[in-house]
Amino acid sequence: MVVAAAKSELTLLERSFAVIERLKAELDHKVVTGLAVREQHANVTTYLPNEPPDAVVFAECTQDVQAVVRACADYEVPVIAWGAGTSLEGHVNAPFGGICVDLSRMNRILAVNTEDLDCVVEPGVTRKRLNEELRDQGLFFPLDPGADASIGGMASTRCSGTNAVRYGTMKDNVLSLKVVTPTGEVITTATRARKSSAGYDLTRLYVGAEGTLGIIVEITLKLYGIPEAVSAAVCPFPSVEAACNTVIATIQSGIPVARIELLDEVQVKASNAYAKLALAETPTLFLEFHGTETSVHEQADRFGELAAELGGGPSVFAVKPEERTKLWQARHDAYWSVLPLRPGAKAVATDVCVPISRLAECVMETKRDIEEMGLVAPIVGHVGDGNFHTTLMVDVDDPEDFAKAKLYMKRLVERALAMGGTSTGEHGIGQGKMKYMLPEHGEEALEIMRSIKRAMDPKNIMNPGKIVAI
Amino acid sequence: MVVAAAKSELTLLERSFAVIERLKAELDHKVVTGLAVREQHANVTTYLPNEPPDAVVFAECTQDVQAVVRACADYEVPVIAWGAGTSLEGHVNAPFGGICVDLSRMNRILAVNTEDLDCVVEPGVTRKRLNEELRDQGLFFPLDPGADASIGGMASTRCSGTNAVRYGTMKDNVLSLKVVTPTGEVITTATRARKSSAGYDLTRLYVGAEGTLGIIVEITLKLYGIPEAVSAAVCPFPSVEAACNTVIATIQSGIPVARIELLDEVQVKASNAYAKLALAETPTLFLEFHGTETSVHEQADRFGELAAELGGGPSVFAVKPEERTKLWQARHDAYWSVLPLRPGAKAVATDVCVPISRLAECVMETKRDIEEMGLVAPIVGHVGDGNFHTTLMVDVDDPEDFAKAKLYMKRLVERALAMGGTSTGEHGIGQGKMKYMLPEHGEEALEIMRSIKRAMDPKNIMNPGKIVAI
Repeated sequence: MVVAAAKSELTLLERSFAVIERLKAELDHKVVTGLAVREQHANVTTYLPNEPPDAVVFAECTQDVQAVVRACADYEVPVIAWGAGTSLEGHVNAPFGGICVDLSRMNRILAVNTEDLDCVVEPGVTRKRLNEELRDQGLFFPLDPGADASIGGMASTRCSGTNAVRYGTMKDNVLSLKVVTPTGEVITTATRARKSSAGYDLTRLYVGAEGTLGIIVEITLKLYGIPEAVSAAVCPFPSVEAACNTVIATIQSGIPVARIELLDEVQVKASNAYAKLALAETPTLFLEFHGTETSVHEQADRFGELAAELGGGPSVFAVKPEERTKLWQARHDAYWSVLPLRPGAKAVATDVCVPISRLAECVMETKRDIEEMGLVAPIVGHVGDGNFHTTLMVDVDDPEDFAKAKLYMKRLVERALAMGGTSTGEHGIGQGKMKYMLPEHGEEALEIMRSIKRAMDPKNIMNPGKIVAI
Repeated sequence: MVVAAAKSELTLLERSFAVIERLKAELDHKVVTGLAVREQHANVTTYLPNEPPDAVVFAECTQDVQAVVRACADYEVPVIAWGAGTSLEGHVNAPFGGICVDLSRMNRILAVNTEDLDCVVEPGVTRKRLNEELRDQGLFFPLDPGADASIGGMASTRCSGTNAVRYGTMKDNVLSLKVVTPTGEVITTATRARKSSAGYDLTRLYVGAEGTLGIIVEITLKLYGIPEAVSAAVCPFPSVEAACNTVIATIQSGIPVARIELLDEVQVKASNAYAKLALAETPTLFLEFHGTETSVHEQADRFGELAAELGGGPSVFAVKPEERTKLWQARHDAYWSVLPLRPGAKAVATDVCVPISRLAECVMETKRDIEEMGLVAPIVGHVGDGNFHTTLMVDVDDPEDFAKAKLYMKRLVERALAMGGTSTGEHGIGQGKMKYMLPEHGEEALEIMRSIKRAMDPKNIMNPGKIVAI
């Protein structure tokens, strides 16, 4: 057989070229091999080196994805799914070359089921566009990682973001997936029923698998009614500890906050400058309350009482939509606001997540590390979940600076693990955090993950070199 | 090697006896082989025939479970985990014999972390006892399947129950698991962090796996603060359709109802007789609202308005704890209340779950089927999730009656699948619903589940003959 012969006699690069030839015949202009496009499809928002694929295929339908996967399976060539390129740990790099499947043209909203509060979308739909389309129907999809990520990418990294404290993460909001498997078959992981006990939870296995088990080509998402009333607030605190303790008290007392975000004083200063705010430059919580008019007021009042007991406040409220937008834009622009802090340096965002009882301690130790190592690294966090980010300004071309940055990130993860936390709350493993899989999970659990990968992708063609090495 | 020799030369039953001898030497009085105990550990709450294991081991610690699994692995003998025996689809039957591990003595609450709103428990802790222990700390674990199930069993069947509409299912409320793998190793699936993107979601893979991939020996659960105010209500409706449409409107308008349960008129009549209630014998919703005093009133008022628009109401409220308890006891006693409807018959509970937009239609078609087939089968449902149960009264000793019951259940599942639903919302697959795995998931997805089972349990010793056959 031609393929078997090809496989045994050709190098990986030659096989990749054979795949490209076959795909050009099948998919024509959708196959692009120019270096600029290939480099743009390898990782751009990370400190990791750019490792471009051998070609990019702009898929327009499930059949296109199947064609790519089948060709790659026949020649045992890597295939890497690409959504919007907003991942942060090298998820879309192509360390072994192969074919990148760009899913951004698969951006149709296939169904919005208002009675069932769900929708079915293609993976290239971005979260902002989805919400624009849903608005007229009084519905929204709450997950908000800041960047205008694609829904497929959000599912693949088990994304969460600012609203997760109330609405959960992608794990909680994906009802079902359509997936192209490593042999090019299409499966559906679940029905549209809200819950099921019918067999292994394939949905949750693909969510967060970063394209290493299959390529997501359709997502059924839970939706929510746009709340009748929304109110945002900014509340300053004398210390990170006071802010974190207020968060704990808020969650414990059952106030259903929709967002509760920490900005440390360094970040507040940066945001003041970037977003032209006039906030007190002290640890600050940004909050949002969703509900009825009455309940939103009640939530805000109760939060205010808890904050005051711990020396926080008074809160400044933003009730008008445009005021709220400005506030959350400032929060989302945290990444950009940090760039002027060290001109010429690259901003490297990293995240960890700890049990909330250890959050203040973890943030404070991290801030001490930042200071002692002479780094610039503001802290922002989805503190209701115990999840925080530091945006480290690194001169990646200076080996000493880069080494220091890597040491800092290693210490950050080790600190989180020592406190019973995880190496990443929402960014994912990609290439950047593979080295922490063993300390986090232990050899036996890691071996189970490897056995799953081997069973589901025996040729190791799906985004190889990410999450687990087999 | 002794074991290898044993394996090749001995029958399964002989190997099982060899395991029992070894375990008696290791675990002494914890190993029980009397028929009564063995039969009591095979399924008792189902229409399926009782298939007892060859022995029951009353495990008292993780090491005991490891000892059983290692012995069973060495001799390739089945091992079946047992919690409280409340499963409904033959999950704990032993069709190939082997060893049942009774986990009911592993019933310690290992930690309650009030700041983190979580706890760590052994699998034999029952949900009622857990809540008794938590009450003094102002916390509760909301999942409530009616029966006083064990937490390990609830995790293994991906249980949900009456509170799932607000608080989610076990999938959403298990943070981490400690699992004895088929080789007798112990792994931890996740940290106590509220969320993580670090690799494959092993937690969600074991939740709902019904003991076919490993035995859960420790569960970390999310907890919630006991709501400041709780109010329950009973609301009669002119039709099932009106009740279902009110549920849809309630969910759509974002009323965070904690429970919303449908009882059809047959069930209301049975419950009136059994629980000495005086409800109008018409389709009825039982509801519960959780929140602050203000918000509970507001929720109830808004629900009342929606119900009235669809011809429902007026609601009768139960605010005092003892009134509420009586109401929910009546709901939970639905199973028992049905027994007098056909004396001598066995009550067979089955469940399906459909997108909520199809619920009224599915319930009505099912009621028509019940009538046309001349069956007795009241309907109750967790209608906020689109999940409903019928309790079919069957004379299992009458072949004709039994055949009719099986036909009815087959038609029920086929109806749910045709409406985009699932063969089981919360009871699980066990033995009873294995035949629906193929129509529900399709051959390719089912083959992926089989490949996972083969990879994780290559000797097929973990609860074989359940979920998937390999």
